[in-house]
Amino acid sequence: MRMYDLIMKKRNGGILSKEEIEYMIAEYAAGRIPDYQMSAMMMAIYFRGMNAQETVALTMAMAHSGDRMDLSAIAGTKVDKHSTGGVGDKTSIALTPMVAACGVKIAKMSGRGLGHTGGTIDKLESFAGFTTGITAEHFVRQVNEIGVSIMGQTADIAPADKKLYALRDVTATVDNMSLIASSIMSKKLASGADAIVLDVKTGSGAFMKEEEDSFALAREMVTLGNMAGRKTIAVISDMDQPLGCAVGNALEVEEAIATLRGEGPEDFTKLCMTLGTYMLLAGGAAADEEDAAKKLQRVIEDGSALKKLARFVQAQGGDAKAVYDTTLLPKASVAEEITSIQDGYVAKIDCDEIGICSLMLGGGRETKDSVIDLSVGLLLHKKVGDYVAAGESLATVYANDSKKLAEVKERFLKAYHFKAQPVLPAQLIKGVVQA
Amino acid sequence: MRMYDLIMKKRNGGILSKEEIEYMIAEYAAGRIPDYQMSAMMMAIYFRGMNAQETVALTMAMAHSGDRMDLSAIAGTKVDKHSTGGVGDKTSIALTPMVAACGVKIAKMSGRGLGHTGGTIDKLESFAGFTTGITAEHFVRQVNEIGVSIMGQTADIAPADKKLYALRDVTATVDNMSLIASSIMSKKLASGADAIVLDVKTGSGAFMKEEEDSFALAREMVTLGNMAGRKTIAVISDMDQPLGCAVGNALEVEEAIATLRGEGPEDFTKLCMTLGTYMLLAGGAAADEEDAAKKLQRVIEDGSALKKLARFVQAQGGDAKAVYDTTLLPKASVAEEITSIQDGYVAKIDCDEIGICSLMLGGGRETKDSVIDLSVGLLLHKKVGDYVAAGESLATVYANDSKKLAEVKERFLKAYHFKAQPVLPAQLIKGVVQA
Repeated sequence: MRMYDLIMKKRNGGILSKEEIEYMIAEYAAGRIPDYQMSAMMMAIYFRGMNAQETVALTMAMAHSGDRMDLSAIAGTKVDKHSTGGVGDKTSIALTPMVAACGVKIAKMSGRGLGHTGGTIDKLESFAGFTTGITAEHFVRQVNEIGVSIMGQTADIAPADKKLYALRDVTATVDNMSLIASSIMSKKLASGADAIVLDVKTGSGAFMKEEEDSFALAREMVTLGNMAGRKTIAVISDMDQPLGCAVGNALEVEEAIATLRGEGPEDFTKLCMTLGTYMLLAGGAAADEEDAAKKLQRVIEDGSALKKLARFVQAQGGDAKAVYDTTLLPKASVAEEITSIQDGYVAKIDCDEIGICSLMLGGGRETKDSVIDLSVGLLLHKKVGDYVAAGESLATVYANDSKKLAEVKERFLKAYHFKAQPVLPAQLIKGVVQA
Repeated sequence: MRMYDLIMKKRNGGILSKEEIEYMIAEYAAGRIPDYQMSAMMMAIYFRGMNAQETVALTMAMAHSGDRMDLSAIAGTKVDKHSTGGVGDKTSIALTPMVAACGVKIAKMSGRGLGHTGGTIDKLESFAGFTTGITAEHFVRQVNEIGVSIMGQTADIAPADKKLYALRDVTATVDNMSLIASSIMSKKLASGADAIVLDVKTGSGAFMKEEEDSFALAREMVTLGNMAGRKTIAVISDMDQPLGCAVGNALEVEEAIATLRGEGPEDFTKLCMTLGTYMLLAGGAAADEEDAAKKLQRVIEDGSALKKLARFVQAQGGDAKAVYDTTLLPKASVAEEITSIQDGYVAKIDCDEIGICSLMLGGGRETKDSVIDLSVGLLLHKKVGDYVAAGESLATVYANDSKKLAEVKERFLKAYHFKAQPVLPAQLIKGVVQA
């Protein structure tokens, strides 16, 4: 088999066989196929696409390219959760304790990622001492003992995907549905959970801007998961404005804690309830949607979800006192209001722009080696549909640098758009895809 | 400017500006754009194509990426000739002395190339001592003195094309019309001639199998040449069967010499007359086609074309006696007939297969470092349209290895296809493209 022939085949619209895809991924991971051939292949795939069989073969080949987590020592159905990401997405921090408190085992691997804020791992590090750098043994034991653990993704989980993604990232071959789906799912499959609930974001702050594309990606991933023998469900949710009100690492943790106390923003609470419902169903911990919702409601009301978060934080070395006293979380030195210069109903918030404001404050990573400032960020007081009077506060900015703060205030104001007439906010849950 | 953005632009169907293409080629040649980005770009170009402006910009950028021959010290119009290559294509060896004998200055750069037989340079090395490794000064002086010189292409002529072609060759991105045209023309433009006559082959033994594609390539190259200010004419000629009868380096030289004596095969003679006509017209040495044909006829009849070949060979260190005594050319140790096993009219000769027979005998290069056996090859006695009786000889094989000879005989027979009814051979000259 020669890579040249495979590129030619795909370029001419052919279908790659399972064996050909396995050869290609194994040889590429081993460094025996050069980047310049693989990037030509990726561009050919961009134009020619891959069918379901090819996508499954690619996903499995990448999932098998490194270590696979063995979760067999954990009894019951292990459920994983993944979000395609967006602005203000602190879902895992509230959701995983909620679901675990309902008796479903959560064994989740998470990444740091480049973005407007840190990834889930960065956010959790707002709890002093918290670490995801735990051993596989610790991970398994913790899930058995308290029902939930989040471990940092090791380099050896789907290394072929890691190498291939880095190449696609610099050759304009990222945005192909099959390639995106196989990249996400290869890591999820290697992480070993029995069921996977996916939160596929859609809108201006999401990777997929169009609802149609988000549904297509959801269908592709659900097919892949189910073909690999994992129960997979995808929820398509709105990311046309930031999720909840907090954008920034410690601020988001504080909002997740508020949500576990039943005091979270309406949209964020609803998303946690929806995703939680499917996780309970996938984990066999609820009879139906109504039953699941009732159980999730109860663990919030009786404080057991919040207690689960505290145990989880403590089990991974974090300062659990901050769960009950959020003044212990990292705090920025300056807090300033951004006041509206006009009256009207908020019609649109440029989601990515709010993300960039957080990044400018130091809340995200511009490069792999950036150090995140966990304390900074924004707390929105007005969201789409809200009425604002001139002079009223749109948001509070938390910063440690007054120059950056001034720049952010200017940029932030341009991200808000108003209308004189009342505006209906977009529906949060766009749909659910399951087999 | 970032290569990533250029790949994305082309991938999405955009038009690259002259500045963007110049940046891309200069940075790639300098090693500051990695192969993996360039191969993704080439694949995007394969799918999206390039318009005339983009193709000109690419051609000029590659032509300017290294040295350019300065032929200003040669008075008059300097004419270059280029063939897209095929089996039995010894045209330059007969054509250039013919045209030079008519008073047109031929300053030609030539390559060795990978192929079924060697390139023009290899073939000319059948004259003991002949070299194309001459200096630019020697080249210019020789053209001034005797009207013709062929110089080996230096590494510094269009180095960006050289690097890019090598990359395309291993990433299945060779066969795009704009890329092929710009690769050929960048070298021709850097070689400095005022006029360029192109022989674009079409058929089973050509790079372009379809006549339509050959015309398209011809149009593309003629446009490029004229836009760059060089008078450019393309002749589209048949390569559905080998050109002439000789396939193999010294055998082809012998056939070229016979042609200069007026004893060449009909098809090959006709091609030389046609290309020669356009070279005389481009070089301003004939009033019209009829006049050109008359002049070319005359230099064959009066022996001046043959004499020009002898002077040319001698001027570049070769043994000119072999021009008049071809027994001095390299000879193979074994010559055997391949006899037909059936009666009929030759309907089709698999041109590439005949080329492979020559390669198997040692007449071509399989890799860059292969050493060519100049003496081996095939002399066809029957071509398309000829009647053959069973037992009659189809060809003579010249070999230095009896095992290879046996393999070649078997393969050769499979390349000939017969019909009971008379067959008309394909038309040799398919058309001419000029501005």
